[in-house]
Amino acid sequence: MPPFGKIGYKPIPVRDLLVEMKNLSELMIDLAYSSALFNDKELAEDVLTLEKHIDNLAYLLDMEIMVASRGDPKDAEALIGVSTVAAATDKISDAAADIAAIVTRDIGVHPIVGAIFEKVEERLMKATVKEGSTISGKRIGKLDLAARMGIDIIAIRRNKDWIINPNEAERILAGDILITRGAPQGSKEFKDLAEGRTSHLEEQY
Amino acid sequence: MPPFGKIGYKPIPVRDLLVEMKNLSELMIDLAYSSALFNDKELAEDVLTLEKHIDNLAYLLDMEIMVASRGDPKDAEALIGVSTVAAATDKISDAAADIAAIVTRDIGVHPIVGAIFEKVEERLMKATVKEGSTISGKRIGKLDLAARMGIDIIAIRRNKDWIINPNEAERILAGDILITRGAPQGSKEFKDLAEGRTSHLEEQY
Repeated sequence: MPPFGKIGYKPIPVRDLLVEMKNLSELMIDLAYSSALFNDKELAEDVLTLEKHIDNLAYLLDMEIMVASRGDPKDAEALIGVSTVAAATDKISDAAADIAAIVTRDIGVHPIVGAIFEKVEERLMKATVKEGSTISGKRIGKLDLAARMGIDIIAIRRNKDWIINPNEAERILAGDILITRGAPQGSKEFKDLAEGRTSHLEEQY
Repeated sequence: MPPFGKIGYKPIPVRDLLVEMKNLSELMIDLAYSSALFNDKELAEDVLTLEKHIDNLAYLLDMEIMVASRGDPKDAEALIGVSTVAAATDKISDAAADIAAIVTRDIGVHPIVGAIFEKVEERLMKATVKEGSTISGKRIGKLDLAARMGIDIIAIRRNKDWIINPNEAERILAGDILITRGAPQGSKEFKDLAEGRTSHLEEQY
């Protein structure tokens, strides 16, 4: 779904839209916190892009709901809850964008802000998979990242799409942007691997 | 801190206020989703109470920030980021309250809404610790809940206070309201234990 431009009506199941909005809004909070913690403008820009994407999803969902209610008050009543939840995820994504904007606007992240987002045990990291990298073309399950490096891939950005909490069968492709969560050391190792700076785990796969 | 009534100025460190707001807003999202999933009015009411509490914290934080900036533009600039993050956590808590209101107002939770909040592997549960219960007076670490039942205590409400992510040394007291997250079977067992309906694990402690 393109993040910009005219939004045409496409029938997408309400459930799918709502699940995507919920998952993206949660990812955005994580990304926004991380962008503030590490003063990372790239992550912050991602949050702002996602915010526009969620706006579009909210628009599509509203259209779906209107079509689904077919002018019937009973149907409309049943769908009010859906609409409320969609609006709530939109509000959450706005809040994440507000935090990200501190970073993109160079307002400067006060040490207090950094401190509250710090979780010693976990850290978000972003890596772009390079052509020829050891992990390119591999299924996530095969990498056994949790056991090997203490990290998980929590999202993949592939072109304009986000795959949230990808499952084990998902294949990593060159050009994928991966968001991982986990131990700082493992995060660093994985980034080097994804970006082709090391391949020392190759023989293990 | 009382959730109602006049809010007097009390010097609480900005960092502590911000950490509490962030943690509470995250807890509220979890509680709101669970209240919608299980159509649980009690959890939904908790979310609404927490929302008022966060409003109070936001008010106190604004006062702190004004005092801290001492009319100095440089100090004020450094504190803008703090104020933005506080406003964002407030927005997140509002979103959680919107979701909870679906439940308290009997709007009816559409099956779609329930479905998107369902996570097979984890479930939030609420239990009140009864006098004489096996776990009353025990430290959390001693209970070894993750290994025994596949659950964690994510929050304790003790009188008007919330303890978020209590540490292992925290002692559970009669009257505590515990919020747990974990496997459905373990959650049920733990609730029975906390509420004194079973004590079959007693000999193990």
